[in-house]
Amino acid sequence: MAGRFWEAQQGRLWIGRLATGDDLVEEIERFCADQDVRAAWVNAIGAVSHAAYAYYDQGERRYVELESNEHHEITGFIGNVSIRDDRPFLHAHATFASRTGSAVGGHLLRGCEVFAAELQVREMTGVELIRTPDEVTGLALW
Amino acid sequence: MAGRFWEAQQGRLWIGRLATGDDLVEEIERFCADQDVRAAWVNAIGAVSHAAYAYYDQGERRYVELESNEHHEITGFIGNVSIRDDRPFLHAHATFASRTGSAVGGHLLRGCEVFAAELQVREMTGVELIRTPDEVTGLALW
Amino acid sequence: MAGRFWEAQQGRLWIGRLATGDDLVEEIERFCADQDVRAAWVNAIGAVSHAAYAYYDQGERRYVELESNEHHEITGFIGNVSIRDDRPFLHAHATFASRTGSAVGGHLLRGCEVFAAELQVREMTGVELIRTPDEVTGLALW
Repeated sequence: MAGRFWEAQQGRLWIGRLATGDDLVEEIERFCADQDVRAAWVNAIGAVSHAAYAYYDQGERRYVELESNEHHEITGFIGNVSIRDDRPFLHAHATFASRTGSAVGGHLLRGCEVFAAELQVREMTGVELIRTPDEVTGLALW
Repeated sequence: MAGRFWEAQQGRLWIGRLATGDDLVEEIERFCADQDVRAAWVNAIGAVSHAAYAYYDQGERRYVELESNEHHEITGFIGNVSIRDDRPFLHAHATFASRTGSAVGGHLLRGCEVFAAELQVREMTGVELIRTPDEVTGLALW
Repeated sequence: MAGRFWEAQQGRLWIGRLATGDDLVEEIERFCADQDVRAAWVNAIGAVSHAAYAYYDQGERRYVELESNEHHEITGFIGNVSIRDDRPFLHAHATFASRTGSAVGGHLLRGCEVFAAELQVREMTGVELIRTPDEVTGLALW
């Protein structure tokens, strides 16, 4: 696919927090489904007690799954919501800092257990972002 | 506390820069106090000459303080402003890159000395975010 | 220069994606030039197949260039657009995660080859951000 930009309008804006023990990805998707948010940009600050993330192997065209069974501070977070399989889908990447400060990160998977998380969800309207398989990368892109 | 979301309205928007030698956290809080900003989402790009950050020990329920006495590029930053002890309070996490590129990070403390910093502050109105002690995590949450 | 803040107005908002093989920095600057975007805040999620970034040596007042010739997930991204040499200029820092999850990062240079990238560009109007040499840091600041 060639690069492309779409002009969008600002939609609703929410600030929220998740509960201790929540699944980070699932709860954001659940909120978006409840509110019928079909496109959004998402940011989050907080910490997890378990992190599940992945690295994409370009050669094998599959995600290599990684996990950390420890408390991590979320020190970087980028996420957006689009539609995949007719439902709001969160695509998010995060950086996680450890007890010594050292950082790891990747593409977020289900299984990130929230210790505390504060979120901002910025809806975008006037655009329709539908994920479909992309032959060049092997990913589902809009 | 259970997870919860609040719908907010977009307030004022500022772009700014800090001066070399400024304290990163203090100056953002000072600006918000001066402008009576009570809720905001904050982003920053730049570098520090000294970094002060922390990791939360969930078992001991206390922050373990870390620091780096070197130039770091800020390569991740997530922050929000709410009210704590009747004043605007910045909750921010950052990732810092070193001379070799390797990254550390955590919950920002006072003591991050700005080398250069460019900021965006996005006020949110229609919400009241007051930090109070949370029994589950030992943190001050809204 | 002393710290300073400017109030801005929200301008246009775009969501976009780059093509596999694009230069991350160049394509964002090209889009902003095409649309006459003179001030913006930019965020990006995705992955690169080659990363080019830098660390600023405060003593020598020059950037030390670093690179990674591997697939990296972008796990932190902060960017803004201002005017330098009469053209839209992207100042961006990013965190990149590796196959083991370990993170590196710095100030983005040309030469970051996009594998996949999803972007948000938020224009700001009512402000004029012109980069000029700063004697204190040796950087081009607005």
